Amino acid sequence: MLHRFLTTRARTLALVAPLSDEDCQVQSMPDASPAKWHLAHTTWFFETFVLEAHERGFRPFEPAFRVLFNSYYNTVGDKHPRPQRGLVTRPGLATVRAYRAQVDERMARLLDGPRTPALDHMVELGLQHEQQHQELLLTDLLHLLSCNPLGPVYDADAPLPAGSGGAEGWATFDGGIVEIGHGGPGFCFDNEQPRHRTLLEPHALARRLVDEGDWRAFIDDGGYRDPRWWLSAGWDWVQQQHIEAPLHWRQDGDGAWQVFTLRGLRPLQAASPVLHISCYEADAYARWRAATDATCAGARLPTEAEWESAAARSGSGLAQCTGAAWQWTASPYVAYPGFKPWAGAAGEYNGKFMINQQVLRGGSLATPASHTRPSYRNFFPADARWQFTGLRLARDLG
Amino acid sequence: MLHRFLTTRARTLALVAPLSDEDCQVQSMPDASPAKWHLAHTTWFFETFVLEAHERGFRPFEPAFRVLFNSYYNTVGDKHPRPQRGLVTRPGLATVRAYRAQVDERMARLLDGPRTPALDHMVELGLQHEQQHQELLLTDLLHLLSCNPLGPVYDADAPLPAGSGGAEGWATFDGGIVEIGHGGPGFCFDNEQPRHRTLLEPHALARRLVDEGDWRAFIDDGGYRDPRWWLSAGWDWVQQQHIEAPLHWRQDGDGAWQVFTLRGLRPLQAASPVLHISCYEADAYARWRAATDATCAGARLPTEAEWESAAARSGSGLAQCTGAAWQWTASPYVAYPGFKPWAGAAGEYNGKFMINQQVLRGGSLATPASHTRPSYRNFFPADARWQFTGLRLARDLG
Amino acid sequence: MLHRFLTTRARTLALVAPLSDEDCQVQSMPDASPAKWHLAHTTWFFETFVLEAHERGFRPFEPAFRVLFNSYYNTVGDKHPRPQRGLVTRPGLATVRAYRAQVDERMARLLDGPRTPALDHMVELGLQHEQQHQELLLTDLLHLLSCNPLGPVYDADAPLPAGSGGAEGWATFDGGIVEIGHGGPGFCFDNEQPRHRTLLEPHALARRLVDEGDWRAFIDDGGYRDPRWWLSAGWDWVQQQHIEAPLHWRQDGDGAWQVFTLRGLRPLQAASPVLHISCYEADAYARWRAATDATCAGARLPTEAEWESAAARSGSGLAQCTGAAWQWTASPYVAYPGFKPWAGAAGEYNGKFMINQQVLRGGSLATPASHTRPSYRNFFPADARWQFTGLRLARDLG
Amino acid sequence: MLHRFLTTRARTLALVAPLSDEDCQVQSMPDASPAKWHLAHTTWFFETFVLEAHERGFRPFEPAFRVLFNSYYNTVGDKHPRPQRGLVTRPGLATVRAYRAQVDERMARLLDGPRTPALDHMVELGLQHEQQHQELLLTDLLHLLSCNPLGPVYDADAPLPAGSGGAEGWATFDGGIVEIGHGGPGFCFDNEQPRHRTLLEPHALARRLVDEGDWRAFIDDGGYRDPRWWLSAGWDWVQQQHIEAPLHWRQDGDGAWQVFTLRGLRPLQAASPVLHISCYEADAYARWRAATDATCAGARLPTEAEWESAAARSGSGLAQCTGAAWQWTASPYVAYPGFKPWAGAAGEYNGKFMINQQVLRGGSLATPASHTRPSYRNFFPADARWQFTGLRLARDLG
Repeated sequence: MLHRFLTTRARTLALVAPLSDEDCQVQSMPDASPAKWHLAHTTWFFETFVLEAHERGFRPFEPAFRVLFNSYYNTVGDKHPRPQRGLVTRPGLATVRAYRAQVDERMARLLDGPRTPALDHMVELGLQHEQQHQELLLTDLLHLLSCNPLGPVYDADAPLPAGSGGAEGWATFDGGIVEIGHGGPGFCFDNEQPRHRTLLEPHALARRLVDEGDWRAFIDDGGYRDPRWWLSAGWDWVQQQHIEAPLHWRQDGDGAWQVFTLRGLRPLQAASPVLHISCYEADAYARWRAATDATCAGARLPTEAEWESAAARSGSGLAQCTGAAWQWTASPYVAYPGFKPWAGAAGEYNGKFMINQQVLRGGSLATPASHTRPSYRNFFPADARWQFTGLRLARDLG
Repeated sequence: MLHRFLTTRARTLALVAPLSDEDCQVQSMPDASPAKWHLAHTTWFFETFVLEAHERGFRPFEPAFRVLFNSYYNTVGDKHPRPQRGLVTRPGLATVRAYRAQVDERMARLLDGPRTPALDHMVELGLQHEQQHQELLLTDLLHLLSCNPLGPVYDADAPLPAGSGGAEGWATFDGGIVEIGHGGPGFCFDNEQPRHRTLLEPHALARRLVDEGDWRAFIDDGGYRDPRWWLSAGWDWVQQQHIEAPLHWRQDGDGAWQVFTLRGLRPLQAASPVLHISCYEADAYARWRAATDATCAGARLPTEAEWESAAARSGSGLAQCTGAAWQWTASPYVAYPGFKPWAGAAGEYNGKFMINQQVLRGGSLATPASHTRPSYRNFFPADARWQFTGLRLARDLG
Repeated sequence: MLHRFLTTRARTLALVAPLSDEDCQVQSMPDASPAKWHLAHTTWFFETFVLEAHERGFRPFEPAFRVLFNSYYNTVGDKHPRPQRGLVTRPGLATVRAYRAQVDERMARLLDGPRTPALDHMVELGLQHEQQHQELLLTDLLHLLSCNPLGPVYDADAPLPAGSGGAEGWATFDGGIVEIGHGGPGFCFDNEQPRHRTLLEPHALARRLVDEGDWRAFIDDGGYRDPRWWLSAGWDWVQQQHIEAPLHWRQDGDGAWQVFTLRGLRPLQAASPVLHISCYEADAYARWRAATDATCAGARLPTEAEWESAAARSGSGLAQCTGAAWQWTASPYVAYPGFKPWAGAAGEYNGKFMINQQVLRGGSLATPASHTRPSYRNFFPADARWQFTGLRLARDLG
Repeated sequence: MLHRFLTTRARTLALVAPLSDEDCQVQSMPDASPAKWHLAHTTWFFETFVLEAHERGFRPFEPAFRVLFNSYYNTVGDKHPRPQRGLVTRPGLATVRAYRAQVDERMARLLDGPRTPALDHMVELGLQHEQQHQELLLTDLLHLLSCNPLGPVYDADAPLPAGSGGAEGWATFDGGIVEIGHGGPGFCFDNEQPRHRTLLEPHALARRLVDEGDWRAFIDDGGYRDPRWWLSAGWDWVQQQHIEAPLHWRQDGDGAWQVFTLRGLRPLQAASPVLHISCYEADAYARWRAATDATCAGARLPTEAEWESAAARSGSGLAQCTGAAWQWTASPYVAYPGFKPWAGAAGEYNGKFMINQQVLRGGSLATPASHTRPSYRNFFPADARWQFTGLRLARDLG
């Protein structure tokens, strides 16, 4: 546990190694947070939820941080307004690094001592939380750099999305009662439980994700200008926001598409999975494909139960379940039957967000490999695009 | 069919009998429509979807109405922007009445002639559509009158919500596989199909709706000021909109609650079902009740499957299934497995709204009695309050 | 005075003769008011400021109207929010007509009795006020009808703007100390006083107003797309509001300009004065003209002192001083040196609006002929376009 | 000139000496700019307007900076959107410092060579421009630090506003024709010219600025809650923005006022001039004072001509003309009679802002001593508060 703790914490610092103090300071939109804030908040999490409860003679690094770096835990008390995270230039990055170092040292001492299940659970939760913020740190940073007209590169060796390995066509699945939700011994979030039965009808899932080449065909066919493909709310969104392509796609003077990535701007790559699409776009693409491609009749988004049940079995023949994109599903984010939030402040982790969000499954190029599992439920509003979000098609079988 | 047509159409006119030309003209917010528009649009529906397809020598009453009174059918062509419906003072109400009369006459001639299933289906759909707008006409009118500081009365004999008949406590239900969705011979909307199996766990449903007395206790206990009870999006909504009570509740100088209704302003009535609450408020109330009332441990909103399956059986002991309020459920509005929208323009009726809305079940004081059934799925965004919306509690059984 | 009172009041009713109850009900934007409100508010003015002070045994027609039809007099007490004037469907037009009739009768009785200077002053003010609202009634109505896609006609014989009578070129004026402001015996508003000295430099004023033909040349030369001509705030406004032509100008399918007027839609008329331009557009036009037309070097808006001093002298050779358009000036609306607002509630009439507005001089096709004089100061924000606003050029002389 | 150039440029760097890279990066609101941007833009000014025209073999430090650090000069070409200045984390502060150093070196070489009036004029303009940004840098920084809940100190020795030296009461001035505007040999902005005659009436000016003690009395008397004192637009602003005190004033738990300054938070100091008030507040204060203090009957804001003419004469007895606050005047910002903007891009410096702004006169604690003169015209919108803005009363004399 100590080793995992130190490794995970070091991984976060490695992510900001290519960044300047200024890069770490700025918040480019209300949904995103500064890298410095991610560094501080993940530390706050250990200090507030682990050390405060378990450290003998607890004394906070800085009492004001309790409010300053609280994200959304009303149980803990006040919090600094989210849209103003980027205005806090002091403490500076150096102080936040010192905060991390001190808390890591105190955590190391604590983990070296006697352990209890309650302690272990909260440390585990803190590490899972840290890993979530590792991904958010990259999505938020990509958004920030995309606002810079000079097109800066985060890291020329930043990870690429997993490829399809040549997978094509559909994997088919019988209907019947299946069990979904986390049932095994390892860690899971409260929203993955209880494991429960659900009914599936016969269906098929695409073996690979929709790629940039597929998406260009959608654009070229006028997909963004035809209300037939769009949910009503999606069509309003397209028109009000003047949406014409995935986020981070740009057309150069000759009309060729360029895609802004953590490695900077690059030409469209047909075989690379499309990223940075909203659920509205994913849904519209499926409808368009269903109507225009005979091999895809009835194409739609998969439900989360279809996705989990396929991804949980070996030999399903699905490529890119993880390592490429969070995959929009047709499932709104709701409580599983019998869901109970964790007790205490941790109960605010997941449950209170269960409205007006869609479930995404899988894991992206930015998701730590140890931070995903078939039962993992990610969730974002239907118009969110700054995450590494993509699409796998599904369809009913007669 | 002709009789039902004429009766239904006459019922709409009866609803506007107490109204002046001015009352019928105004749109009090973008979500609402003027009564005059409801009168014209329901007529447009018959002219566009029935007469244009089936009337020999079809000639529109006025070609410009095709765009002017289209609500949201992109397949039909352009439409007048929704928020500007109230700006169209011409045609006036007299012309819209003439439009109704002429279309009714043409419809009567048509229905007097040879009939086909396609014709019958569209007439039926038109009548169902007319009934939906009968309810909307009242909700929109109530909102309009509520904006008038003089507190005008629509009708001193306007319908009251169905009472509980003394029902109290919980009706309990076993788990198991049940079928929901419309399966019988009568009319249903496409979104009620296909009938399909779903799994329920053992649960209980409150025999009556939450009433105004219950709700006052929630207010008095600070329910609107305590984030513990609220979904995160609900809490944001409460704070940004300064929500302190259901819509149409007003506190007089002595702090006593008054409720504005179609009969004007009246004092709070403890036994009357609470109306005009958002899904956020319904959800918060359930959490508060679960935490503060030992007889309601685990209280939550029912799922739509729980609701339908109980309401569909006789002797369930549930009061106020219809005639009082549309009841918020825990179910986001999604397609049933294997859902297929109707062909043609009617396919825009329901399917394209299947995101970011919650299902409501039942039927309100304003719902025509013939326009409800256990499988009926109403839907509104989680913050909508101008409808006659209420709440029945549910909970898991061990 | 009684005769004038009755004539003026009757004139207001004549303006709404072509209108339906619905036309009189609707408020098409927050800056505009419903015709019914104008009818009621002008009556409220006499009831509140004249009858309440001078009528023996004063009893209001309806006490609630004191708040309902107050426009902006904080001294009088509360007022109904301006953007919600159009939501008040009750009292209806018939009741407002009865209100007018009753107040007119009471006023007639009052004016038939003993008179005092204080009474006369307030009656005079009420009549001037009534005339202002006669013009506003038409501008607000034109805006409302312009929102109707059917292009309705208010009155086929509605007044046309005064023509130029063939006037062309510049009238020149020497510099020196002049007096401006109202100095004579007749009525004036407080903001026209005190009459005072001011210094003018030698200058010229265009003999006629800029006309639709002139304006088309500005459009054709790309005037709305070139930031060189625009004040910084004006350029922001053009871009954010997507302004491409005066308000009420529309381009048909062939690119020909049509202008919506009180007589309905008509083709552009080159010799008709351009109307419905903002101060930003007027200023941009002058800069463009100065830069592109050698005969107009140094073209700019006139100051209000230049305008008044020219309009006040006979034989100046200026056409269209009244009867065509309110003419934007270069003068922000500020207090004259030594300005004293009227005592009491009437002091809120003008003084509190003396910031962020520009003075307009003259009088439009909709201004009652007896309601204008050289010293009259009209004022609107620089982006206002729904009034009958136009432009006369000026320039410095060596 | 070279000495002044180097001194002025060094002064800017000295201002950021107490700041971290992060402090220099952030933009706390659209009206403010990051310190890094100020450093870069002032350098861009010299590179674009001086070096590009006068340096042999001109090669820009970085071509992309031409767009990136352009503020509002449409003549120069595109510009980065103002509200997004804070999102540009690269180039970092180190690069911007290198940019400054290189441009300073090139400028030094240029100034060491042959000089022309055109060159001298643009260098002078660049230095005046640099001084303006020195003040803006501090106002923007104060705003940024005020957003930090930890209340950070910029500099414990930051300048304090000039005191009144015990001056009290009124200085009186005769009326008559005076000349205002810059007439002497030194530098001035185009908007200070031409020097011209204007008429003044007899009036008095307060010898000192309104101070924090005076302002507390206004608050204590309910000044922010009484519409009688406020311009209509000011009253709307107070209510919509919930204004209750000057910007940067905070009430502690005991109700005592604290003021946030460049030296951090300090208690209210009765004798210190009030700062960070809008023109609306200044105007309301004057009306309140006029109505409640017999010694101040007729109190109002001074006109800019009154201010300049008094400040330009020696022995007027006015304290705090500079070194304390920019003083709101009653004068909207308009062109002087015969005003001609500078030719070329510099013509965009002042003229295009001449609408919807008020003139301020004087100079604040943050204004470089060499950057003020009696004819200097500063201007901001009436609701601006983040500048060091204060108030000197005036009144008419019989």
